[in-house]
Amino acid sequence: MNFRTDLAIESIQSNKETISINSDEHRYGDVTVSKVIIDNQEISDKLGKPLGKYVTVEMPTLTEYFRASDERIKIISDEIKDLIPKKGLAFVIGLGNLEITPDALGPKATNSILATRHISGEISKSLGLENLRPVSVLSPGVLGQTGIEAVELISSIVKDLKPSCVIVIDALASRSLSRLGCTVQISDSGISPGAGVGNKRPLINKDTLGVPVISIGTPTVVDASTLANDIFYEHSENFDDKKEISCPNAEAMIVTPREIDLLIKRASLLIGMSINCALQPNFSPDDLQSLVS
Amino acid sequence: MNFRTDLAIESIQSNKETISINSDEHRYGDVTVSKVIIDNQEISDKLGKPLGKYVTVEMPTLTEYFRASDERIKIISDEIKDLIPKKGLAFVIGLGNLEITPDALGPKATNSILATRHISGEISKSLGLENLRPVSVLSPGVLGQTGIEAVELISSIVKDLKPSCVIVIDALASRSLSRLGCTVQISDSGISPGAGVGNKRPLINKDTLGVPVISIGTPTVVDASTLANDIFYEHSENFDDKKEISCPNAEAMIVTPREIDLLIKRASLLIGMSINCALQPNFSPDDLQSLVS
Amino acid sequence: MNFRTDLAIESIQSNKETISINSDEHRYGDVTVSKVIIDNQEISDKLGKPLGKYVTVEMPTLTEYFRASDERIKIISDEIKDLIPKKGLAFVIGLGNLEITPDALGPKATNSILATRHISGEISKSLGLENLRPVSVLSPGVLGQTGIEAVELISSIVKDLKPSCVIVIDALASRSLSRLGCTVQISDSGISPGAGVGNKRPLINKDTLGVPVISIGTPTVVDASTLANDIFYEHSENFDDKKEISCPNAEAMIVTPREIDLLIKRASLLIGMSINCALQPNFSPDDLQSLVS
Amino acid sequence: MNFRTDLAIESIQSNKETISINSDEHRYGDVTVSKVIIDNQEISDKLGKPLGKYVTVEMPTLTEYFRASDERIKIISDEIKDLIPKKGLAFVIGLGNLEITPDALGPKATNSILATRHISGEISKSLGLENLRPVSVLSPGVLGQTGIEAVELISSIVKDLKPSCVIVIDALASRSLSRLGCTVQISDSGISPGAGVGNKRPLINKDTLGVPVISIGTPTVVDASTLANDIFYEHSENFDDKKEISCPNAEAMIVTPREIDLLIKRASLLIGMSINCALQPNFSPDDLQSLVS
Repeated sequence: MNFRTDLAIESIQSNKETISINSDEHRYGDVTVSKVIIDNQEISDKLGKPLGKYVTVEMPTLTEYFRASDERIKIISDEIKDLIPKKGLAFVIGLGNLEITPDALGPKATNSILATRHISGEISKSLGLENLRPVSVLSPGVLGQTGIEAVELISSIVKDLKPSCVIVIDALASRSLSRLGCTVQISDSGISPGAGVGNKRPLINKDTLGVPVISIGTPTVVDASTLANDIFYEHSENFDDKKEISCPNAEAMIVTPREIDLLIKRASLLIGMSINCALQPNFSPDDLQSLVS
Repeated sequence: MNFRTDLAIESIQSNKETISINSDEHRYGDVTVSKVIIDNQEISDKLGKPLGKYVTVEMPTLTEYFRASDERIKIISDEIKDLIPKKGLAFVIGLGNLEITPDALGPKATNSILATRHISGEISKSLGLENLRPVSVLSPGVLGQTGIEAVELISSIVKDLKPSCVIVIDALASRSLSRLGCTVQISDSGISPGAGVGNKRPLINKDTLGVPVISIGTPTVVDASTLANDIFYEHSENFDDKKEISCPNAEAMIVTPREIDLLIKRASLLIGMSINCALQPNFSPDDLQSLVS
Repeated sequence: MNFRTDLAIESIQSNKETISINSDEHRYGDVTVSKVIIDNQEISDKLGKPLGKYVTVEMPTLTEYFRASDERIKIISDEIKDLIPKKGLAFVIGLGNLEITPDALGPKATNSILATRHISGEISKSLGLENLRPVSVLSPGVLGQTGIEAVELISSIVKDLKPSCVIVIDALASRSLSRLGCTVQISDSGISPGAGVGNKRPLINKDTLGVPVISIGTPTVVDASTLANDIFYEHSENFDDKKEISCPNAEAMIVTPREIDLLIKRASLLIGMSINCALQPNFSPDDLQSLVS
Repeated sequence: MNFRTDLAIESIQSNKETISINSDEHRYGDVTVSKVIIDNQEISDKLGKPLGKYVTVEMPTLTEYFRASDERIKIISDEIKDLIPKKGLAFVIGLGNLEITPDALGPKATNSILATRHISGEISKSLGLENLRPVSVLSPGVLGQTGIEAVELISSIVKDLKPSCVIVIDALASRSLSRLGCTVQISDSGISPGAGVGNKRPLINKDTLGVPVISIGTPTVVDASTLANDIFYEHSENFDDKKEISCPNAEAMIVTPREIDLLIKRASLLIGMSINCALQPNFSPDDLQSLVS
C-alpha cells in the first residue's frame, strides 16, 4: 500500500522492505541533503515516482526569520545549480492558486524571482547589471481559473521563448506532519501540477516541453486520509485486519500547520531566493534581494 | 473522554450515554435549527461548556454563492434577534488573527458589519437613515500581536461605550470534518477567544464585561489530534485497549478544507449579514448590503 | 497640444476645433452610451488613437453597490456582444500589475471571469452547463515581473489556443478627474498595455494576434502632469503665453480617488460580470454570478 | 494662504516671510535631520500646527531595499528615543484604514511592532528575553468602520493600561510631490488622525490622553487641490490676480506615486523597525527583526 506523497524520500521509505535504493547523504550543520537516483522503470513504477534525480534538503524548521545570506539558501541554490544548464534563458514557473493559501507557494515564490530577460544592452550597462543571466517568470494559474492546463500554456510559450531550461515551483503533499515546511525537494524528473492539493494534472517534464525541467517544492499539506491511515496503522500494528480505512469528507480535507500563511510566506521566500542565487552566480545574495524587493 | 470541540451539540452527542438534555429542533427547508439550554452546573462541567442557551444552525454547505436575501441569513438573524436586547448600542467584536486564514473569520466578518454609532442627527436624516440602531465594531487582534488580552481591551472600551450588548464573532473548532463550514453556533454563554485555533484565553462573558454577550461562530478547523483519536476509535472499536493516542506535531496542526480561504470568505459574509439584519430590522437585506459594500 | 488620455472621447473633445467626427449617442436612464468610428488614418493620427470603433459608457458613479442584475451590466454586456464574434473560444486577458492598486483592474477583473474551456462533454451535462461558450482566461503579469512583453506571451498562446477573439481588460488614464470610475470604454481598435500607468508597450491588436481584439477598460488615474496642465490652462486662459508647464516628479505621480481600492474592486466586478453576460447569453446574470463566486 | 500640509517644516517654509523660527539641522551622509520647537501660541496659530517639538528626517528616497541595520533606522530611532520616557509600558497605535492603500501606513507599521507586554516572568527568561521593555500595540481602525473615534477608543484603553507614553503612527499629507516617501516627521505635539486623507478628527495628544504622545508619520499623498494651487501660482507669478483656484472633484482626489503600494510597504517597515529599536535598546536591529517576522 502506497500512501499519497509527493516526496520520493517518503515513497522509498514506505517501500524499503521490497526496494533497495542507494541514498547519498551529506550534513551541513543542522541541514541534511540526501540524493537518490531512480534509474530503473520497475522501481519507478513501484515507487510511483518518475525516473530522475531527487535531492531532499531537510532542516529543523522554516518557522523563523532568515536573511539573504542564510546558509540554507546557499545549500539549496548549490543543488539547483547542479541540475540546471549553466547558460541560456531560464524560465521559472510558479504553479498553484494564489487564492488558496496552502496552494500559493508557487505564485508567491515567483514574486521573489528576479525577471531579467527584458534588461539588456545599454540599460543593463547603465544599471551595472551586465552579467545577469536572462530569466523570465510566469504564474500560469490553475485550470479552474484559466480553462487551460498549465502544461498546455507553458508548452505554447516555451516554443517561442526557447529557454535552456524550465524551473517549476509547486506546493507538495507529504505523508508526514513533521515534514511540513522543513523539507525541500529538488528534482529533474518533472512535475504533476496540483498534486499538492489533490488534483493530478498532465505531467510537465522534458518529454512534454522539450527542454530540461527542474522542479522545486516543499510540502505544505498532508492529506487527511493519508494521516488517518498512518495513525490507524501505527496504533493497531498488532492486529491482523489491516485494511484501508475511509474517512468521510477527508477527500476535500487537508492537514496543515495552524500558521500555514507564515509557512507559505517563508518557504516561498527561501525557494525564490535560492533560485535567484542559482541563476545569478555573479551577484551576492544581498544584492539579489535588493534587486527583487 | 471529551474530544476537543467548541460546539455544544458535539459535546452533548459524545456524552449522550451519561447526560440527558432536551433539544428543541426545527427544520426550514434543508436547514435545521436545534436549541439546547445548559442550566445545571453539573451538566455544564461534564460537557465542558458554560451555562447558557446554544442554538445550532446546520445547513448542507456554505460553499456556494448566496445573496443578501438568502434564507439562511434570515434564519440566523432571527435566532440572533431572540438573544439580544431590542434596543441600545450593540458592540460587535471580531476575534482572531486576520493574518492566519483559518483564524480570520472574526476580523473578516466585522468588515461586513455596518457601523452606525457615528451617524446621527442631521446626517442620518439627510441620508434617509433615521431608524438605524447604533452599532460600533472592533477587531481587537490577538495577544501575540497586541500584548493585550482581548477581554482586557474590550472591557476597557465597554466601560466607556456602555453598550446594551456585546456580539462576539470567532472561528470555532469542531470534532467532525463534516461540520466545517456547514454549522453556525449562536450562544449567550460567552466565549473563550482563540479556542478555534487552540489557544485558550480568558472568558468574554456577562460576568467579565457586565453586559449580555452573544457569541456567533462557525467551525473552520478540526484539531489534528482530535481527528486522529476519532479515526482510531471508530476503526478499532472491537478492541479493549482504547487509550488516547498521540500524534507527533499534531498540536500545531489543523485539518481544514482545501478551500479554507473560500470557506472563511463565505462564512464571514453570512455571519456579518445575519448580524446586520438582526440589528437593523427597519432595513431590508439588500439595503443593508448596499450600505456595507 | 494633445494631453495624455486613453479615452477616444477625450481626444476628440480636445481636438474638436480641428476635427469633426460623428458621435452616436443613446441614453438609458442615467447612463449615456456614445459611439464613434475612427475610419480615416489622418484623423487617427491627429487623435493619437488607432482606427476602430469606440464605445463610451458614462454613468454617474461606480462608487456604490451593484447586483448581478444591475442595468449597467446589461448595457455594457450588450455593447460587448456587438463587437465580438458570436461563436468559438473567447480568450479573456487581464493586463496590469496585481500588486499596484491603480493598475490592478485587469488582473482583478479576470478573477470574476468564468473559465469554461475545460468543462465539456459529460461533466458539463452533469452540471447542467451544456450551453456554456468555451472561455479561457489569463493574467500575464507585467514586463518587470515576467521579463516577457504581454503581446509576446499572448501571441504564443493564441497560436495554439486558436480563439475566435481576444478580450483585453486594462486600467486606463483619463484627462479628467470627473471620469475616474464613471466611464467604461469598449473598443475593437486594440490596446497598448501599461498605458494606464504610463509605460507604453507594443500594441495588442488584430494585426499582432491574428484574431479580433476587443478591449475594455475604465480610467483609474489622471497623470499628475496632465492635471497640472489642464488646471493651468483653464485658469490662465486670458493670457498669451500658453506653454506646456512642467511639474517636478510628476512623471512618477498619479491622481486617483482617495478610495482607489474600492473603485478598482467595483470596476473589476462590473467589467467581469459584463463580459460573462456577453459571453454566456444562455445564462442569467444571477446564475453566472453564482458560478463565479 | 496656508496650503494643506501635515508637515511643520512646510508650514514654516510657506510662512517664512512673516514668521521667523530657528531650525537646528544635522546631516548624516545623505540624510538630513532638522528640529524646530513651536513654543509660542501666536506662531502656533499662524502655522496651524500645535505647540511642540518637530523633528524632520529627509532622505533621498525610500524606494529601495533596506536591512535591519540600515543607517536610516538608527537615525530615526535615535530621534524617537529623545522624545519618549525611558521606562514603562509603551503603547503603539497605528491609525488609518488598512483597506485604503495610501491610508494604510499606520496599520501596516503596527504589523512590524514587537508586542511584548504579555511576555513576562518565566516565559521571558526561557526565551532569553528578560530585558524587553513592555510594549502593547493596536490598530483601532477608522470611524467609518468602527463607529468610534480613535481618540475615544484609545482613551478608554489608556485609562486601564496606564502606559508611560503613547506612540502614534499615521500617514501624512504633504504639499510637495518631492517629499512623498522621502520624509519622516516625529513630534511630541499630538496628532489629528485622518489628516493624511482629508478627514480631520479630534486631537490625540497629552491633553486628551493624559500621557505623552509621540507621533511618527511620512507623507503618502498630496491633496489634488493643493497641487493644483501650487502649480498655478508657480506658473502665473507675474500676474496680479492670485486667487484660490478650485478644481472639480479634487476634494475626493489625491496625488500619489504610481508605486504607492511599494511606498507604504517600505515606509511602514522603516517606521516599525525604528520604533522597535527605540523601545528595545538591549537588542540589536537584526535580533528585533527576527523576533518580529
